[in-house]
Amino acid sequence: MALLQLTIIPLGEGVSVGDYVAGIQEKLADENAVFHLTDMGTIIEGEVQDLLHLIGKIYETPFKQGALRVVTNIVIDDRRDQQIHIGDKTKSVKRRTKMVQK
Amino acid sequence: MALLQLTIIPLGEGVSVGDYVAGIQEKLADENAVFHLTDMGTIIEGEVQDLLHLIGKIYETPFKQGALRVVTNIVIDDRRDQQIHIGDKTKSVKRRTKMVQK
Amino acid sequence: MALLQLTIIPLGEGVSVGDYVAGIQEKLADENAVFHLTDMGTIIEGEVQDLLHLIGKIYETPFKQGALRVVTNIVIDDRRDQQIHIGDKTKSVKRRTKMVQK
Amino acid sequence: MALLQLTIIPLGEGVSVGDYVAGIQEKLADENAVFHLTDMGTIIEGEVQDLLHLIGKIYETPFKQGALRVVTNIVIDDRRDQQIHIGDKTKSVKRRTKMVQK
Repeated sequence: MALLQLTIIPLGEGVSVGDYVAGIQEKLADENAVFHLTDMGTIIEGEVQDLLHLIGKIYETPFKQGALRVVTNIVIDDRRDQQIHIGDKTKSVKRRTKMVQK
Repeated sequence: MALLQLTIIPLGEGVSVGDYVAGIQEKLADENAVFHLTDMGTIIEGEVQDLLHLIGKIYETPFKQGALRVVTNIVIDDRRDQQIHIGDKTKSVKRRTKMVQK
Repeated sequence: MALLQLTIIPLGEGVSVGDYVAGIQEKLADENAVFHLTDMGTIIEGEVQDLLHLIGKIYETPFKQGALRVVTNIVIDDRRDQQIHIGDKTKSVKRRTKMVQK
Repeated sequence: MALLQLTIIPLGEGVSVGDYVAGIQEKLADENAVFHLTDMGTIIEGEVQDLLHLIGKIYETPFKQGALRVVTNIVIDDRRDQQIHIGDKTKSVKRRTKMVQK
């Protein structure tokens, strides 16, 4: 089990691209993905081969919404000594610190 | 006002690097930064010149903790037609969608 | 036709990870991929669905070489108004500038 | 000595953004930076504090050219057991492989 962070950046579609990000969220929900939206991307959990297959399935979404150019950033964090689920890494770091954050 | 996502990846320090991420969180708290930890990075808000100055101040932290090599990923999202604060972009996207997410 | 930049970062395998990057290069050559190594990643050209399939095929390489955790960064630049090949974007930028670079 | 890869993505400025990338190249040349343009970004070498200062100096360039929103991606690879210069990492990987690449 790994985490994948997906960020899409449509170019030439105006300064606000929230409709494109929403399009991806809806597709992920349709695919029953386990995901979490942050201000800088969408974190999805799963086996990497399944995640790559999922990316392939949702990839055309911003182009179907009209974008002519999209930069897609994907970061995969995959460790084999333990399972990683959404929320685990933040919990583990917070156990180590005492600070308040927004 | 912009958002900056910071991710540090220490190499050669073992498979678990949570202590290094916690080190960064403590430094950010010491600097009174406005930040939010996600599973894939730390999102910090501020003016870009201040954020770059802040990165400079906390940059040595993982090396002081013993790392010999660190890959640092920084993504800055800066728009001039409106202020961006932590939480704004997720709220804006969620208004556009109706799906449930984890 | 799009460009995909792939960067792999094995954690806990020592400070030098060139053997892992070389492992990926050999796999890409075996798969007859069109690719170009830079200091910060490997740029591969192709149709996006083919590129995602290729990533799936080579993905296990660093784990087979012994890594227990790998962070994989993928950036896809895909435009539909024209084909993008390796070398096109640098040529286009250099036409616009006159500067000397290393 | 570290390497920094800089990629700028102006949103809402049309599908072609080569003029913005050229603007950054010219600024880097004016600053006497040691840099190398690839299809997916610009690789700059230097001490990290100098590199962050340099990013601060060139950061406004795309906004001055008219962009209202820019996503900036920065990757820093910094190792303390040896100096890294532009070209070193590709040479080191190529020594380990025998394959032909474009």
